[in-house]
This record gives sequence, structure tokens and C-alpha cells, in this order.
Amino acid sequence: MAVTVLRLGHRPERDKRITTHVCLTARAFGADRVLIAERDDKLVENVRGVAKRFGGDFVVESGTGWKRVLQDFDGVKVHLTMYGVPVREGAGAVRPGRDLLVVVGAEKVPREVYDLVDLNVSVGNQPHSEVAALAVFLYEALGPDVLAREFPGAPMRIRPSARGKIVEGSTDEDPDAMPDDP
Amino acid sequence: MAVTVLRLGHRPERDKRITTHVCLTARAFGADRVLIAERDDKLVENVRGVAKRFGGDFVVESGTGWKRVLQDFDGVKVHLTMYGVPVREGAGAVRPGRDLLVVVGAEKVPREVYDLVDLNVSVGNQPHSEVAALAVFLYEALGPDVLAREFPGAPMRIRPSARGKIVEGSTDEDPDAMPDDP
Repeated sequence: MAVTVLRLGHRPERDKRITTHVCLTARAFGADRVLIAERDDKLVENVRGVAKRFGGDFVVESGTGWKRVLQDFDGVKVHLTMYGVPVREGAGAVRPGRDLLVVVGAEKVPREVYDLVDLNVSVGNQPHSEVAALAVFLYEALGPDVLAREFPGAPMRIRPSARGKIVEGSTDEDPDAMPDDP
Repeated sequence: MAVTVLRLGHRPERDKRITTHVCLTARAFGADRVLIAERDDKLVENVRGVAKRFGGDFVVESGTGWKRVLQDFDGVKVHLTMYGVPVREGAGAVRPGRDLLVVVGAEKVPREVYDLVDLNVSVGNQPHSEVAALAVFLYEALGPDVLAREFPGAPMRIRPSARGKIVEGSTDEDPDAMPDDP
């Protein structure tokens, strides 16, 4: 099963940090690919930079639009929104044998999106964050082991530790440095 | 058990959206209170506005600093970081009879924080987002039912639906409108 995240409503200046967090959260929680409907070359470059440092084959593209992506996708399509059915019910709709598309909007999502997906899923019915919603949905849909996935080819790797930072690998880079640093 | 989230390293202009998402995620996932170490009156006002519209007794304060908060806190103190022990191990350290403090940083977290907490916990060992980490940690530590919690006194309430938006309550406001709209 391949997992794609479709990000809608991205506005380059305003949303660069939130969309960066959406991309990195998608990658860390088992998605193979993020499509950003609106074009933002700088953001794509930054996210690719992090993905390269930490390994794996994560794909990110921007300027893909959303309608045709939704219409053409062959698999289960889920939209994360404050208005949907509970997350556990939504996660139950995911089928291991079918590809998964998870749609996350910014504030205003066109009505059509609600109708083009198989299911509108809500991670709680309170306002919070598309980053939080994406993380918890993927965690429920793919299972907790998704966090233990290996990312091959990483020049940099973190070793879990109750106290302090243990970084393995030959690099002078600081793994804390996020791509959206000013 | 009262749950407090301590947000470190907030820079008002740059981090306003991420910190807003941290606050709303904290509220939606069962925290009673967020303390933002650095002062940002505008952000606090915005988050309080959302909390008021959606009910409950959520508290948010800024300019609290962090060292004394950490030193004086009576309860279990957990720091979410890419470098810590796995989230399920970390969630297991939470005790229903004791208050909980969850620390989330921005990029650079002072070394002292790692030492002042009881446990450094990692939601995966890949770089992603403090918003995602907070959501998944609270979801694991407090349990999935945390999302079904009631928020008394809300003028606005969402009813779960597989298709479209059902908003109950007497208001002209759009629940989609986030507080950090330009």
C-alpha cells in the first residue's frame, strides 16, 4: 500500500511552516509522498533537503492541483476535517491492499473535496491542527509500528535516549535545524 | 490529573501559527493549560477567543519563562524531543494520580531542559513537528477517549458527519476561521 498526502490551500508566505510540518509529519508517519496543490518551489527544496539527510525515498511535489488528483486516484480517499466521522472509524476504512490518499486542507476547503473522497474523517470535533490530525490519523491507520520504520541511506541517525542527544553518522549538520529557519 | 503544556522558544512573528497549533492541539487532546515561556499577548488573545467559542476552561498564558516552571512543577515532567525514548514507553510513565507537564520546544532547546525533566520522549526518531508529537503523545498518554471529551458552555458545536459540515449552535461565525487568519 502506497500512502499519498494531498495538501490543499497552501499559501507560500503564510503557510510555509505549517506545510513544512505537514510534509515532515507525513514522512515520519509512513506516507510515501506529499502533493501540494499550490506551487512552492522553495518549500519543496527544503523538505527534500531534510528527507535526503534522514534517508528513505520520500517524494514531495508542488503545483499538482487537487481536483484531478482526487478524481484520478485509484484507492481509498480520506479527507481530514473537524466535521467528519471519528478517527477510529475512519482508520478502519483503510485497506492494506489498496493505496491510500489523505487530504489535508488549510482553512477553507472547497465543498467538492467533501464529495470527491470516500470518507470525511475527524480527529476529534474541536478545532486544532492539520498537522496533529494527520499524525494521529496515520498512527491509527498504519499502526504504532509505523514510527519504527527504517529510512535507508541516511547519513544521519538518532539513537533513542532518556537523557540527551545521541546522533550517529558522519555529518557536521545539526539535526535540530529545521528547513524553515530564517 | 491536570495536564499542562509548556511551550519553549516561541518567537512571535515566526512561530505564531505553529504555537497557535500547539495551543489548540493541547486543548483538543486533553490539556488544561498551556504556558508559553516567551511573551505574546496577541497570540494568547487569539487562542482564548477560539477556546471561548468552543467551550471548556482552557487556560493559556505567555511570558511565564521556563526554568522556574520546570523546577517548581509537582508531578511528572516529560520533554518531547526527537532524541528521547519511544512514545509508548514515555506514555507509560504518566501516572493518573499525578499532574503532568509536557514540554515542547521550537528548534533549539537548552540542554538544561533535558536534565530538569523526568523523561525525554520521542514520537519517532525522525524530524517532524512539535504539533504532531504533542498530539500523539497526549493521545497515547491519556487514551483515545480524550477526543470525545465534552467542552461545556460552547456556543458552537460540531456534529460528526461522513459528508459535509453540521454545526450546531446560534452563531454567525465560521468555525473554520482560525485565529491566525491575516
